[in-house]
Amino acid sequence: MRTSIEPASIAMLDQHDPLRSKRDAFLLPEGVIYLDGNSLGPVPKAALRELKIAAEQEWGEDLIRSWNKAGWFDLPGTLGDRIARLIGAAPGETVITDTASINIYKALHAGLNLRPDRSAVVAEGSGFPTDIYMIEGVASVRPDMRIRLEGVDGPRIEDLIDDDVAVVLVNHVDYRTGMLRDMAALTGRIHEAGAIAIWDLCHSAGVLKVDLNANGADFAVGCTYKYLNGGPGAPAFVFAATRHHGKLSQPLTGWWGHASPFAFDRSFRPGHGIRPMLCGTQPILSMRALAGALEVWEDVELDQVREKSLRLTDLFIALVEEGCGSFGVTVAVPHERTARGSQVSLRHPHGYEIMQALIDKGVIGDFRSPDFMRFGFAPLYLSYTDVYVAASILYDILADGTWRASRFANRATVT
Amino acid sequence: MRTSIEPASIAMLDQHDPLRSKRDAFLLPEGVIYLDGNSLGPVPKAALRELKIAAEQEWGEDLIRSWNKAGWFDLPGTLGDRIARLIGAAPGETVITDTASINIYKALHAGLNLRPDRSAVVAEGSGFPTDIYMIEGVASVRPDMRIRLEGVDGPRIEDLIDDDVAVVLVNHVDYRTGMLRDMAALTGRIHEAGAIAIWDLCHSAGVLKVDLNANGADFAVGCTYKYLNGGPGAPAFVFAATRHHGKLSQPLTGWWGHASPFAFDRSFRPGHGIRPMLCGTQPILSMRALAGALEVWEDVELDQVREKSLRLTDLFIALVEEGCGSFGVTVAVPHERTARGSQVSLRHPHGYEIMQALIDKGVIGDFRSPDFMRFGFAPLYLSYTDVYVAASILYDILADGTWRASRFANRATVT
Repeated sequence: MRTSIEPASIAMLDQHDPLRSKRDAFLLPEGVIYLDGNSLGPVPKAALRELKIAAEQEWGEDLIRSWNKAGWFDLPGTLGDRIARLIGAAPGETVITDTASINIYKALHAGLNLRPDRSAVVAEGSGFPTDIYMIEGVASVRPDMRIRLEGVDGPRIEDLIDDDVAVVLVNHVDYRTGMLRDMAALTGRIHEAGAIAIWDLCHSAGVLKVDLNANGADFAVGCTYKYLNGGPGAPAFVFAATRHHGKLSQPLTGWWGHASPFAFDRSFRPGHGIRPMLCGTQPILSMRALAGALEVWEDVELDQVREKSLRLTDLFIALVEEGCGSFGVTVAVPHERTARGSQVSLRHPHGYEIMQALIDKGVIGDFRSPDFMRFGFAPLYLSYTDVYVAASILYDILADGTWRASRFANRATVT
Repeated sequence: MRTSIEPASIAMLDQHDPLRSKRDAFLLPEGVIYLDGNSLGPVPKAALRELKIAAEQEWGEDLIRSWNKAGWFDLPGTLGDRIARLIGAAPGETVITDTASINIYKALHAGLNLRPDRSAVVAEGSGFPTDIYMIEGVASVRPDMRIRLEGVDGPRIEDLIDDDVAVVLVNHVDYRTGMLRDMAALTGRIHEAGAIAIWDLCHSAGVLKVDLNANGADFAVGCTYKYLNGGPGAPAFVFAATRHHGKLSQPLTGWWGHASPFAFDRSFRPGHGIRPMLCGTQPILSMRALAGALEVWEDVELDQVREKSLRLTDLFIALVEEGCGSFGVTVAVPHERTARGSQVSLRHPHGYEIMQALIDKGVIGDFRSPDFMRFGFAPLYLSYTDVYVAASILYDILADGTWRASRFANRATVT
């Protein structure tokens, strides 16, 4: 690849990277440049350690006593509070529980219940599909509810918000393009109309300085297995702003959300604070791996994460545009730093085959229909050299047409 | 303890126990007789092995590729089919997913949607509390729905069933008393009235020869972390009879239940068969530990499990009644074998203190309000000698009043 960017300058960037030592906190397979942390983060060493303790000591030796002794019962809140700093929440506003889909269902109901005189829910037609499916699920039990989708009912989400809108559910970073929404401006617009803002942070938690409270967000949901590296399918988080506590109601009223979960009452009474967002018994082994993964974040400055993320994506965009533009590859993510998450999506009519060829050569990204190659840049374990090597391999594949020979793997992958 | 039961006869029972070698499949802590497998089963060695492979190899080395390569994406169905034999289901009728509470919510909606012209849901007022809470949650989004509870609206569940009843949700084994319902008779009564039967198998799966299809059950839910030993909070199962497939609808419509989960469609279309009971991304590490736990069951004959379970509980009841009856302890579980699960509940005004004294001496059971001491008898890892020793320790505690000095531990425990 011929570019104006000197390998020596890349090495300098790595040398002066304040996050470079964080790479040692992860187990990364040999010979792989992992650009799919936006789908499944790699293994933090502390996650393996905690998983082993949880399985062998807590489950194996202490058995049922670990619900108290090892703090299992408190995990949704204690882990939620550890994520709080990363998303700009106050203590007691976030819990780890269930899946992002189910937390969206809860937050939608809770938001609608806060605006009983309104009927519309607004979301993105190009949003992550499960967000829309869960909205449809809520609509199936709230026959008066109306759904308005950006790209279907109007070009811009802002234009769909009027005084019949109860809730707006919006992705902070678009899963396909990597586009970043302006949380402050959009939340302001939502509140101006008297509606409730639910932010889906699946593709921003852990790579941006998310600031839910400073921006006035009402609810938020997110994954912990992407940039937070909590492990495959690790339980999700849900945030509800303190000002709504005491008024939170949603229909998944299980024992863990009860005011007195061990009183075995015959009727549900919601617990205090964020507790009504909890429902049933959580997968403790997965939770404990996540507890280890969150240790890695304890001394991380999110400003440094965001700055490195932008430099990594700046670099990749520059290398691709200079080196690969002539092969029909276009950059789908905005060039403006304020409109970009930590993912660069490239488009090419044969994006699927090119991604397969990349994976065969150890550069792991993924593909999303119809023609998006997605590359996630996680600042804690990636170097600038990784980015340079990945772009060079992409160039080689495009230049010699290797991708035409790449075998079709199973397309099934999980975002 | 003086009883008519000879220690030599106990040793003989162990010698001739066809399941005795299964104990080696478990890691059991030294000095503990674990009679709380009805709350959290102990560690199967295979679960630790699979958990390690899942964390280090599948997550650590293969990363995102494990969704296909390691079969993560198929786990809800493949593990569901392995549980199918234990509960009398056919292949394709059971999935492992989410929590028992959330699966109850799905099954209730699905059942109600199959009987749109009816409005009542019947359940047990003394049923496991989260079952009732989830019914209340469903009612909160179905304003026409009426709840009728056994013990509140009538003495017997059978008398509450009429032609306005859409769904009956009932526990196979009562979590407090250990009482076993007659699944065939009650399902027959429910169907006679044209209603849908949902069985909660939390306290029967893995200790009884549950026979859902032979008894005509419509839906079932259950835990995997009690007698199935899947690990703390391991994902739950949900069963839907094949005759309802194609007509399953419930409002938790997440991506995993979609007909084409990787097509990223803008609207939800339910998948085939049992798939509409799935919703969001599952906790894979917890699922993989469960996969190991289920290996233990592969060559187990459930008739032998049931027979041993009855002998264990018969023995415990006999020892307690002969040895401890004079101390005010009463047996809460029925003596008739057909009305008993695998748990013996004893009542005593100071049951809580007595249980603490037992735990201090290494006999782990648990306590449920107001005065129930619960002892679960899991045939795969308990011996008749364990039962004899446990009863003897109970006798000693009662006889010398040790329980009066037992410290009050935190009452919080999870069923």
